[in-house]
Amino acid sequence: MKAFGRRVWAIPEGYIPSGSVSDAHDLASHEAACFLNTGDREADITITLFFTDSDPVGPYRLKVGSKRTVHMRFNDLRDPAPVPRDTSYASLIESTEPVIVQHTRLDSRQPGMAMPSTVAYSEGE
Amino acid sequence: MKAFGRRVWAIPEGYIPSGSVSDAHDLASHEAACFLNTGDREADITITLFFTDSDPVGPYRLKVGSKRTVHMRFNDLRDPAPVPRDTSYASLIESTEPVIVQHTRLDSRQPGMAMPSTVAYSEGE
Amino acid sequence: MKAFGRRVWAIPEGYIPSGSVSDAHDLASHEAACFLNTGDREADITITLFFTDSDPVGPYRLKVGSKRTVHMRFNDLRDPAPVPRDTSYASLIESTEPVIVQHTRLDSRQPGMAMPSTVAYSEGE
Amino acid sequence: MKAFGRRVWAIPEGYIPSGSVSDAHDLASHEAACFLNTGDREADITITLFFTDSDPVGPYRLKVGSKRTVHMRFNDLRDPAPVPRDTSYASLIESTEPVIVQHTRLDSRQPGMAMPSTVAYSEGE
Repeated sequence: MKAFGRRVWAIPEGYIPSGSVSDAHDLASHEAACFLNTGDREADITITLFFTDSDPVGPYRLKVGSKRTVHMRFNDLRDPAPVPRDTSYASLIESTEPVIVQHTRLDSRQPGMAMPSTVAYSEGE
Repeated sequence: MKAFGRRVWAIPEGYIPSGSVSDAHDLASHEAACFLNTGDREADITITLFFTDSDPVGPYRLKVGSKRTVHMRFNDLRDPAPVPRDTSYASLIESTEPVIVQHTRLDSRQPGMAMPSTVAYSEGE
Repeated sequence: MKAFGRRVWAIPEGYIPSGSVSDAHDLASHEAACFLNTGDREADITITLFFTDSDPVGPYRLKVGSKRTVHMRFNDLRDPAPVPRDTSYASLIESTEPVIVQHTRLDSRQPGMAMPSTVAYSEGE
Repeated sequence: MKAFGRRVWAIPEGYIPSGSVSDAHDLASHEAACFLNTGDREADITITLFFTDSDPVGPYRLKVGSKRTVHMRFNDLRDPAPVPRDTSYASLIESTEPVIVQHTRLDSRQPGMAMPSTVAYSEGE
């Protein structure tokens, strides 16, 4: 199948609150990037995090297999460093293969969950 | 009327929780893709679902008539297989005619509903 | 100032529930299209509504002045016919001048409001 | 690193309610624009606000450093004038360097927060 998508994506909004009304994994506050690789080759993904007052951190690395989706939580990133809580950040995503990226967020600091979602910004081939 | 839109769309984010605070059809947790076909010919839509650890499932087939909209719930897909609950998935949508696709989701696991929405990723003519 | 934007926009998702937990105008369930006209000429907007099982309804007409924004509620449309409640619809927006359109929705059927938002699909000049 | 993004962005939807269920800074109702500058030069950002019945207000000015993100709240804008509450507005964002802009909003008038998010409309180089 054709590899749909693009190789560069960006998500300017990022913020993981330290509090959550639920400890259940699926209901804990989190930020996620959902990747879809429709192509025949595995995609090597590199993520760089940007901050307000300090230098970028990265690269974080991730593989998305051929014809697979990965729903990655920024909360789970560990190497080279965990994502700081209660801190504004942004992310740049670069891939060796065309992929499609959607940003989603679950905020459960309050009992009524907020869950925004948007296809990320993309450019290039 | 001109057939606005594109023939290839993708929605990387997909997740149908098994629980819901309401059994009412309009308030049950669901994922939906809303299709608009402004053109003079019926559009044959093919949907392929992608998963994290297994091969794609599809094609699911759907028709969107000339000058009609269809708000399809992924929850209602049956053939070739229902969409597994509590499982991350992604979808690729291909159409014989240009259409426009918007992704929306209602999450009613908690009393305060979350309802993200985004125009899907598109490419091609 | 330059007239930024495009002349054709589409919002496949549309649904106005008949119920609401609040009667306050700003908290009642509604669907809105927000228009921005940055240019020097007034924009004449034409909206056509599409349905699942019946023919399109329209045109609805609206003007957005030079250097003005209009946040239009679909709930308030009257001519040629009000938008039916509890019914899926989609909208096509055509403008004589380039404009920018964002779709937003407030769903207050439950005490925790849901409020998705997305920049609409656009094409053409 | 390459300066990804574009120089012109628009957010047609804007509305800051005067009420909020929480006085905590991170939970107070707000509208935000998140900027990402991946490039090697500082970006000078100019924001113009548009209204329904009156002339545009601006320019508001903001700098986003090289390889930095700024999550700006419209609530915090002061010069040349604060953003009026309970009033519909729209914003046009122009930058000397390519940047990426995401619009997010927290509405905490009700206990279940609503938090829509969308990549803003962009055009030009």
